Amino acid sequence: MEIKVVRKVLDVNAKMAEQNRKLFAEKKVFVLNVMSSPGSGKTTTLQKSLTRLMPDLKCAVIVGDICTTNDADRLAVSGAPVVQINTDEFGGDCHLAAHVIEKAALDLDLDNIDLLIVENVGNLVCPAEFDIGEDARTVVLSVTEGEDKPVKYPLMFRECDSAILNKIDLLPYLDFDMDLVRKYIREVHPGMPIFEISAKTGEGFDPWLDWLKSLVLKKIR
Amino acid sequence: MEIKVVRKVLDVNAKMAEQNRKLFAEKKVFVLNVMSSPGSGKTTTLQKSLTRLMPDLKCAVIVGDICTTNDADRLAVSGAPVVQINTDEFGGDCHLAAHVIEKAALDLDLDNIDLLIVENVGNLVCPAEFDIGEDARTVVLSVTEGEDKPVKYPLMFRECDSAILNKIDLLPYLDFDMDLVRKYIREVHPGMPIFEISAKTGEGFDPWLDWLKSLVLKKIR
Repeated sequence: MEIKVVRKVLDVNAKMAEQNRKLFAEKKVFVLNVMSSPGSGKTTTLQKSLTRLMPDLKCAVIVGDICTTNDADRLAVSGAPVVQINTDEFGGDCHLAAHVIEKAALDLDLDNIDLLIVENVGNLVCPAEFDIGEDARTVVLSVTEGEDKPVKYPLMFRECDSAILNKIDLLPYLDFDMDLVRKYIREVHPGMPIFEISAKTGEGFDPWLDWLKSLVLKKIR
Repeated sequence: MEIKVVRKVLDVNAKMAEQNRKLFAEKKVFVLNVMSSPGSGKTTTLQKSLTRLMPDLKCAVIVGDICTTNDADRLAVSGAPVVQINTDEFGGDCHLAAHVIEKAALDLDLDNIDLLIVENVGNLVCPAEFDIGEDARTVVLSVTEGEDKPVKYPLMFRECDSAILNKIDLLPYLDFDMDLVRKYIREVHPGMPIFEISAKTGEGFDPWLDWLKSLVLKKIR
């Protein structure tokens, strides 16, 4: 019974996501959905990424949070247009759904955007279930969270096209085994590109941004 | 429409939670629901807590994960009976619901338990919405997650009876403002007890365990 209801919600979402996908194709906007646990460093990662992408690509951001505009305020500093969604207006939703993205996109000049980054609600479970019409998905995992998250939250790592391991500047102070987390990621998603970065120091951003840029250019050219 | 469906699920859950609460009252079992983001250190905190509580209190644990029995294996070392719930058997649920606790409790000898600790699925959003029939709730926040989590995820901090700030051994390597997180916690939940610990080093456990023990003894005596 409960499962049927969930299925219906997901079916409706899939239809809306297809509509979004058509619109973004028509407008030649590449959409990246960025997901993670709370506090993995998504916003700092995106802040630094925007600064480096903006000379070459016209970027915009949709930020999802249950409450506050903290992240939108931080991202707006980059100069990119930012739309904040607070899901507490829809009962505190734990994820961004396709219809929410559709509405947020109305506030953006899509003819003037190459790359639209969606920073999802901090949650390693539910957002993975909701197609929003994106072109690619990236999961950010902080090395402070432990190596076993890919096997404990396999849907997220299976559904994403790349993984960012963030906060590597803290590695000297943690018992974190980089080989083990890579092994776990590859167990649930063989061949997935993995990028090791420190959003704080800026270390390791080149391979990650190269990966993203090549995908964006393929679509918008 | 969607909201109505969710309401129905929560109404059913509230009824089941009341049944659990009656059973736990009858059996004089104190139930603590422990919630947090993925990777906040719930399991290590509970491992250390069990070791220190076990001489005085008969403890048991119900562990919720989407996949794997990693946490149950770690907690079983304490000697406490542990029941693992893998929510991927129910479609990958992002939280523990009351009916799941009811079933898990069947595997425990409640006549021989003073304190039943429920380690919820790693998720700072959804578990806060589901009453499981517990006596108290504790949220664990790792200081690596940033100070603003209480205001970004206010329901969790409002619904919990105490907050643990974990991984304080990493403070020298982070830009984390302890006064600011305390201010944010008190904004959403005035007067909430806050415990600062390092589950890794064992620092700071005394006030947390004293708080928990006094609540348990009040119920079971």
